[in-house]
Amino acid sequence: MNRPLTAFALAVALVAPAVARKPVPAKAKPAAAAPKTYFPPEPPPAPPQLHGIQYLYGSAEAAALTRQTWRMLADYVDEQMATGTHRGVVLTPDSTLTNPHFVPCGDKPPAIVLDVDETSILNLGAEYDDLMANRRVFDDEAWDRWEKNGAAYVAPTPGAKEALDRLRDHGVTVIFNSNRGAVNAAGAEAALNAAGLGPAKHGETLFLSGDDDKGSFKDGRRRTIAAKYCVLAMAGDQLVDFSDLFTTEPNGVAARRATVAYSGIADLWGAGWFVMPNPVYGSGLQGGPDDIFPKDKQWRDPGPPKPAAPEPQPAITPKKAK
Amino acid sequence: MNRPLTAFALAVALVAPAVARKPVPAKAKPAAAAPKTYFPPEPPPAPPQLHGIQYLYGSAEAAALTRQTWRMLADYVDEQMATGTHRGVVLTPDSTLTNPHFVPCGDKPPAIVLDVDETSILNLGAEYDDLMANRRVFDDEAWDRWEKNGAAYVAPTPGAKEALDRLRDHGVTVIFNSNRGAVNAAGAEAALNAAGLGPAKHGETLFLSGDDDKGSFKDGRRRTIAAKYCVLAMAGDQLVDFSDLFTTEPNGVAARRATVAYSGIADLWGAGWFVMPNPVYGSGLQGGPDDIFPKDKQWRDPGPPKPAAPEPQPAITPKKAK
Repeated sequence: MNRPLTAFALAVALVAPAVARKPVPAKAKPAAAAPKTYFPPEPPPAPPQLHGIQYLYGSAEAAALTRQTWRMLADYVDEQMATGTHRGVVLTPDSTLTNPHFVPCGDKPPAIVLDVDETSILNLGAEYDDLMANRRVFDDEAWDRWEKNGAAYVAPTPGAKEALDRLRDHGVTVIFNSNRGAVNAAGAEAALNAAGLGPAKHGETLFLSGDDDKGSFKDGRRRTIAAKYCVLAMAGDQLVDFSDLFTTEPNGVAARRATVAYSGIADLWGAGWFVMPNPVYGSGLQGGPDDIFPKDKQWRDPGPPKPAAPEPQPAITPKKAK
Repeated sequence: MNRPLTAFALAVALVAPAVARKPVPAKAKPAAAAPKTYFPPEPPPAPPQLHGIQYLYGSAEAAALTRQTWRMLADYVDEQMATGTHRGVVLTPDSTLTNPHFVPCGDKPPAIVLDVDETSILNLGAEYDDLMANRRVFDDEAWDRWEKNGAAYVAPTPGAKEALDRLRDHGVTVIFNSNRGAVNAAGAEAALNAAGLGPAKHGETLFLSGDDDKGSFKDGRRRTIAAKYCVLAMAGDQLVDFSDLFTTEPNGVAARRATVAYSGIADLWGAGWFVMPNPVYGSGLQGGPDDIFPKDKQWRDPGPPKPAAPEPQPAITPKKAK
C-alpha cells in the first residue's frame, strides 16, 4: 500500500519545499563521550503536504499536547466545582468579543460542551480514504457516507476518554455540539460510542447541524444547552466551536490572530475555553507567505560572505634606456 | 510577491491531495432565518504543504492554543508555589519512562526550563526564507547564519511574554535550554531579548548545545540547572525537550505515540511538562499512510450505491400450432 505514496512523493519532490527545522537529537550526532543511546534513523523524506496529517494523527507530540489539554480541562472543571465558582463560559446574545458576558449558572447542573470531529474523536478512516483517494477538494457526498458508516474507523483523541470518565464520575454531564448533520444523528452517536466517549444521545447530549434553523452556527445550540446546564468548559479545534461572533470579525491571517488576543477573551483560553490542535483542515488554514509572515519579519539569507578581491598588482614599468 | 507561490501552487495542484475537512461555518451557507453575519469567503486553495506553516504561524487557532498552554503553565507553577508543593519535574539519572523519579527541590529557588525555537519564539524569518528559497532539505549553513543574525525577525509565541513576566514577578527564574549552538550564544541571547522574553544570559539563564560534551542531548544541561534550581515546569515542542529517554525508545509512529501514554509519564503532560504545537518540523513528522493509520482504521469510501439491475424479462415462447 505504500506504492501510491511513493510515486506520489516522487512527483511532489519536484515542487515541494521543505520547511526549516532546528537541529533536534533525531538528526544530531552524539558526541563520543555521549551515553550509549539508540538514535532513531533520520525519518524518510515525506511529501510536506503530509506534515499536518503526520503531526495530528501520527506524532507523539500531538498526542501529548492533546492529552495535556484534556487533563487541564478536567483539572479546571474539577477546581471550579471544588471552589463552587461555577462560572458559565457560554456567551450571552448581547456579548461582543471585547465585552463578553456569560449565561449565568444559577443552580443548574454542571456540564461541558465539546465539538466532535478532531476534538473528541480522530476521523482516521475518513482521512485515510481522502489521502489514498488523492482528493483535491472536500467531497460532501463521501463525507456524508462517512458520517453514516464510519463509526468503526474513528478513535478518541488521546486523553479524551480518561478526562470524560473522570468528569462524569464527578457529576458533570458531557454534551457534544457538532456540525455533523442531524439526518446522520445515528452515525454520530455510533461514532462517539464506538470511541468510548458515550453516552451520546441526539437531543439530550448530542446537538447537530439542523437541530435549529441556524445551519452551521452553533450559538443557538449552545444557548439551548446553557438554558438547562451550567457550562463550565467548552472544547473545540475551530474558533466557531466557542462563539459565532468570530465569524463577524474580519477574516485574514493577521486579523484572526489579533482577535483571539482581545482583552475580553484572551484569558479564556485554558480557563474555560480549550483548543485542540488541528493543522489538517479548517478556517485557520489560509494565506500565502505575505499573509502569514509580517513584512518586517521577512528575512532572506544573504548566503556566505563573498571572498575578498585579491590585492591589485602594481604594473611593471620597463627601465628607461641610458 | 505572490507570484512565486501561485506558480508553485499551480505546479503542486497536479499532485497534491487535499485532506478531509468537516463542514465549518467558513464554508457553511447560513439558513434564511440565520442572524445577519459576515461570512468570510472560502479561503483561496493553498498548496497543502503550506498547511503546517499556515497553522503554526498564521492561524488564530494555534495562537489560542499556544496562549492557552502558556496560561496553564503559569497557573500550574503559581499553584505549586501557593501550595508549597514544589515538585521538581527533571528526571533523575536512574529514571525510566515507566518508573520516573525527579530531582528533589529541597529549598532551591523556583525555576522553569523552556526550549527556545517554536516553544518560546517563532522563527518567522527563517521559515519565510526557507519557504521562498524553496529548499528541499535543511540547510545547516543558512540556519547558522540565522542563529547569528535573525534576532530582529523572530516573535514570541503567543502568550509567552505575559506568562514569563507574571512568573518572574512571582520570583520564578526563567531558564532556556536550546540546541542552538553555544558558538552562537550572542545570537540566541539577542533573539530572546528582541522577543521580549529576556533576560537570557549564556551559562546563567541560557544553556546551549556545546555547553557540555553531550551534543544535542539536553539531560546533562537539565541536571546542571536542577542542581541549582527547583524546576517546577518545562516546556517544549519536541519530546526530547523533556527527557533524552525518549531517544532510547523504539522509533516509529505507533511506538512513539504509545510512549507518551506510559503510566509513569502520562500524567505529566499539562502538570509539569507542557507541549507547544509544531506541525512544521521535528521528529514527529514521519511515516506514510500505513504507518500513520492503523490497519483497522483504513476505511475506503464505497461510493454511491449501485442502481439495482432491471428485472430479467421471461423469454416469450411461441404458441404451439394446433
